Amino acid sequence: MVRYKATIAYDGTNFQGFQRQPNGRTVQEEIEKTLTRMNDGRSIQIHGSGRTDAGVHAQGQVIHFDFPQTRPLEKMRFGLDTQTPEDIAVKDVEIVDDYFHARYLVTEKTYQFRVDIGKPRSPFRRHYASYFPYPLDLEKIQQALPDLLGTHDFTSFCATGSAVEDKTRTIYEATMAVNPAGDELVFTFRGDGFLYKMIRIIVGTLLKIGNGRMPADSLPGIIAQKDRNAAGPTAHPEGLYLWKVSYE
Amino acid sequence: MVRYKATIAYDGTNFQGFQRQPNGRTVQEEIEKTLTRMNDGRSIQIHGSGRTDAGVHAQGQVIHFDFPQTRPLEKMRFGLDTQTPEDIAVKDVEIVDDYFHARYLVTEKTYQFRVDIGKPRSPFRRHYASYFPYPLDLEKIQQALPDLLGTHDFTSFCATGSAVEDKTRTIYEATMAVNPAGDELVFTFRGDGFLYKMIRIIVGTLLKIGNGRMPADSLPGIIAQKDRNAAGPTAHPEGLYLWKVSYE
Repeated sequence: MVRYKATIAYDGTNFQGFQRQPNGRTVQEEIEKTLTRMNDGRSIQIHGSGRTDAGVHAQGQVIHFDFPQTRPLEKMRFGLDTQTPEDIAVKDVEIVDDYFHARYLVTEKTYQFRVDIGKPRSPFRRHYASYFPYPLDLEKIQQALPDLLGTHDFTSFCATGSAVEDKTRTIYEATMAVNPAGDELVFTFRGDGFLYKMIRIIVGTLLKIGNGRMPADSLPGIIAQKDRNAAGPTAHPEGLYLWKVSYE
Repeated sequence: MVRYKATIAYDGTNFQGFQRQPNGRTVQEEIEKTLTRMNDGRSIQIHGSGRTDAGVHAQGQVIHFDFPQTRPLEKMRFGLDTQTPEDIAVKDVEIVDDYFHARYLVTEKTYQFRVDIGKPRSPFRRHYASYFPYPLDLEKIQQALPDLLGTHDFTSFCATGSAVEDKTRTIYEATMAVNPAGDELVFTFRGDGFLYKMIRIIVGTLLKIGNGRMPADSLPGIIAQKDRNAAGPTAHPEGLYLWKVSYE
């Protein structure tokens, strides 16, 4: 068996998330169906760097799988790309050592979150950015962002019901840019890992700060409380992109 | 009756074009349904600056309609915007003189055409750019573009079967830009009017030139032939945007 690592992008709009499940179309299922077909009907299973929820997108999700034969890499990439549905793109394929694992060996993940702040909401971004039509003081958001950096117990920013025990994570980068037209915010978060719905709760909290319903210096206190109720609402999934996964 | 002019955007993906027709969802029908509802069920008809085909988008389509009462403009805009489906946005509403006509008084129209030249095709652009995965010499396209400028009989760039008699049009602007990532071409065409499928045939011809299957200086000869068969193929509708309509 040869182990392949692939970098994929997908438009999450018409998926019930990445991970295979009994009901609903998933990214994993579509890719496994294609690989199994390429393997003359013998089942192939893939492993992703992590799940993404329904409606969440990926520009750089990483998967690995074992395939019986060595194939020319561009042939493998092209075959997978063109045989999967058009809302999945296969950007890169490489052969990796047998010990490579797309989930266990992750060192960093980068997410983007986009917020459409235009009036009206752009019909072209309705599936690709969350919409926030209320007043925003962007300066307050810029002030609050550095408070996320470093190693913290992010219990307050984890959806209740998560089975993960250790909720300590390190965030290396937390920035916000405004697009040239001034009608879209692009948040970038890079860290050693993120809890369930963590980015969406962070963005919901930052928007509450920008909207003046929480002071700009609220984040340290929210983190200290270790209580999901202390943070803001969960932002909608359509603004979230798994942007990059790093290894080694 | 008060005459209103409105500037609208729409994602053409799920429409059978702008103009009302017996079968299929259209932009005109959705807006007229909303206006009629806002008018207590009494029918309101809209007039657009022109049709757009199935799959074609608009950032700045202009319509006009007559409504019995004067309403605060932002209230009218917000009502129309929020009550139409989410793939239509109402960007601006103003009250105009009774002689204003969205179609007859057009002085200039601007279209954009986007071509995804990345490998693989971006899943996020599959409805918003035409895909061209073949080699392209962009310099040849840049060389050819100025030959479109000025007043010409564009019969060679008009879909056969068009009922329009005078096929002379003036093009003021014909440019191509590459996006920062280098994987998307953005063509802009501005003129006093365009024939049926004219932009799509122009782009199909330019891509043929860029791909080396036609010399870079072909356009004057194609124009001179006044024969649709002399030009290249019709590019796909999903790359086309009605960008701006100017009056007076």
